[in-house]
Amino acid sequence: MMNRRQAAQAECTVGIVGFGTVGQAVARILESDLHPNLRLTHICNRRIANKKVDWVSSEVVWTDSFECLLRSPVDVVVELIGGLSPARDWVKRALGAGKSVVTANKQLIAHEGAVLLGQARDNGRQLLFEAAVAGGIPVLQGLRQGLAGDGLSGIQGILNGTCNYILTRMEAEAVSFEAALTEAQELGFAEADPTADIDGHDARAKLAILIGVGLGRRVKVDDIPLTPITGLNPIDFIYASKLGHVVRQVARAELVEETTATRAGVQPALVAEDSALGRVGGSQNIVVAEGRFGGETAFSGFGAGGGPTSVAVVSDLLTLQGGFSQASEGRLSIDTGPTPVSTEFVDRQYVRFTVSDRPGVIAKLADIFSKNRINVDAVLQEPGWPKAELPFVMTLERCTTSAVRAALGEMEGLDFHMQPPFWLPILEKGDRS
Amino acid sequence: MMNRRQAAQAECTVGIVGFGTVGQAVARILESDLHPNLRLTHICNRRIANKKVDWVSSEVVWTDSFECLLRSPVDVVVELIGGLSPARDWVKRALGAGKSVVTANKQLIAHEGAVLLGQARDNGRQLLFEAAVAGGIPVLQGLRQGLAGDGLSGIQGILNGTCNYILTRMEAEAVSFEAALTEAQELGFAEADPTADIDGHDARAKLAILIGVGLGRRVKVDDIPLTPITGLNPIDFIYASKLGHVVRQVARAELVEETTATRAGVQPALVAEDSALGRVGGSQNIVVAEGRFGGETAFSGFGAGGGPTSVAVVSDLLTLQGGFSQASEGRLSIDTGPTPVSTEFVDRQYVRFTVSDRPGVIAKLADIFSKNRINVDAVLQEPGWPKAELPFVMTLERCTTSAVRAALGEMEGLDFHMQPPFWLPILEKGDRS
Repeated sequence: MMNRRQAAQAECTVGIVGFGTVGQAVARILESDLHPNLRLTHICNRRIANKKVDWVSSEVVWTDSFECLLRSPVDVVVELIGGLSPARDWVKRALGAGKSVVTANKQLIAHEGAVLLGQARDNGRQLLFEAAVAGGIPVLQGLRQGLAGDGLSGIQGILNGTCNYILTRMEAEAVSFEAALTEAQELGFAEADPTADIDGHDARAKLAILIGVGLGRRVKVDDIPLTPITGLNPIDFIYASKLGHVVRQVARAELVEETTATRAGVQPALVAEDSALGRVGGSQNIVVAEGRFGGETAFSGFGAGGGPTSVAVVSDLLTLQGGFSQASEGRLSIDTGPTPVSTEFVDRQYVRFTVSDRPGVIAKLADIFSKNRINVDAVLQEPGWPKAELPFVMTLERCTTSAVRAALGEMEGLDFHMQPPFWLPILEKGDRS
Repeated sequence: MMNRRQAAQAECTVGIVGFGTVGQAVARILESDLHPNLRLTHICNRRIANKKVDWVSSEVVWTDSFECLLRSPVDVVVELIGGLSPARDWVKRALGAGKSVVTANKQLIAHEGAVLLGQARDNGRQLLFEAAVAGGIPVLQGLRQGLAGDGLSGIQGILNGTCNYILTRMEAEAVSFEAALTEAQELGFAEADPTADIDGHDARAKLAILIGVGLGRRVKVDDIPLTPITGLNPIDFIYASKLGHVVRQVARAELVEETTATRAGVQPALVAEDSALGRVGGSQNIVVAEGRFGGETAFSGFGAGGGPTSVAVVSDLLTLQGGFSQASEGRLSIDTGPTPVSTEFVDRQYVRFTVSDRPGVIAKLADIFSKNRINVDAVLQEPGWPKAELPFVMTLERCTTSAVRAALGEMEGLDFHMQPPFWLPILEKGDRS
């Protein structure tokens, strides 16, 4: 058996499965002179003949057969095909064939990470997935190793660049959600079918991985509640601004004290303009970790795109090539089942009503909040709107998610609503100013 | 020989040298239930009797003798005494006695890091120093491992919380440097002798370490030029704001293409209000790394204080305990001598003149810039100042540090100066918005 230094200096051979934007960007780095100990030997894709490029070494084997890759002597398979099928099966087979695996596949790790990590461990191989969360930002490794000394109690993140782009455009230009989405699609910041971004499915998979790696708890992805950003109206950005806040799609999770449960959710929320999350503009991503001893630490940068994502993949390859240590290992609980997700956050709240105005509207609403033991903090009403369809905002003192839901449920039948009430939590400003 | 998994699960015993704020914070974490595989066994400090606390295990040995620690079986010595002497000697002796060392000592690593890392390697031991730069922000590890896949070309940072606190107060309250410093001292954000912070010595040591770890180049600390923040006047913040900028103490370094030299410096500079550096307020720190493939990635959080710094120390202990790998290893060049530092940045420039106003002043100054092949971009003059001592600003198009220095040198003899011209670079805004 080689000792560690010999192992560390050995060459590591790499096969890429999926030669799209990220796959090509990974190949670009491997074909540069940066990392002489990483050698690209195989590229596998459907209809491989159409994929060939002239800038990779002539020794690289091009194939459309995953079997061919499995039978080859490559040390590491880089899985970049995305989605659950056939990726799950292929990763299992690669691990079974004695390969380590590096993947950027967030859905695969969010849903099957614990099982696949267990299989990797049983086979004496590794499964690394830094690129699955926040692209080029080395946040998984930062949580796992850099902040390992701390006990993390919570995580907040902006994990979807498409949503953040749309929300910062709505904020800057006071345009509608639809107009901002169309612009994002034209500029390539949103896909033709942006459903997974807007609904929060994309951010939710990343949050589930962050909960596993950062908080050490395994949760079922589908247990994490989602609120899409589609309900936002330009008037919400105006009211948010009056309150010193901006609107962001926030993915967040907190340990629930003295239980195995994790409070978690993905939803649009008000965050202070001068908070770490409020300062993230455009298509950038950020993750803020809250530690028991170290306070808040933030990791930010480009969460998507071929360049940043490929850097994360290659960094994982170097971790494997350099001699994997327990310190690099995931904290995803392999041996226990999933733990419960709680949706009960305690927050200040923003509620927008759109009513046919008449005497007694506010009194009636305030009465229902009061019966639900919720204190109204302020009523904001911008001038210039018609009384027949008047938007105004009530902010509420800290209360639970279920309390605000119950109160809004009781308000449903009131006949002055011109649109259903629209509700957002107001996140506390951290110490970051 | 144990295999890696056994080694990884073994207990690691720890002795702390220096039981001040950080040492006590490290002991707090080790005495918590967070890390059962790390065991605090020794605490060493001068006049140890005065240092004893009742919340550490009764099995911990208290000593004022470093020899006692050296002779003990501890696996890792945590050096928290700071400064070069006797820390250098003690770290050498600990490594010589077969201990690994974790330190928060920025001056020691900046000046002696390569030598000490070489000694650690020769002895088959490790030397880790995450806490030496930016306290609780895991930036060294992020550069070394998380961004290892990229080739980094430059680093910019706000590395001194005291300076950042003073500058953000001058910006917010339009107070003088002296008033902001006094306030910072009263609130505990600045030390009684703040010289090392204000002059840039503190940030410079951290920058030298970042150059070693992030850019892979070894430089002599004293080769990096410093400009203190003392020359700033409240009027500079007003003019900076007109330009959409704020003033920060920036530590920066860039590879000089096709040479072994590194452009580096620590100085106050104008940065865009909405840039990553511009958004860092109060006593926070940030490091922005520029990668060839991944673009800009930022790490931010608390750069100092017992809690955050102790988290970095304990994370290093866990890296040692979990099975150190080559991937965790420093890139500080051990085997080569120091490489040159260049002071020749190319920047837009901000120059504040304070003159006895009369016809021809601007023409004369513009003429000298022109002779030095420097283009004037704009002239800014706020109303309300006396003609007898009028501050105004000229901004210059991109030019080298030496060109602006030469032009200002030629202007020295002009008889209309009421104060020497004051000059700051205007850093380019990154892609971060």
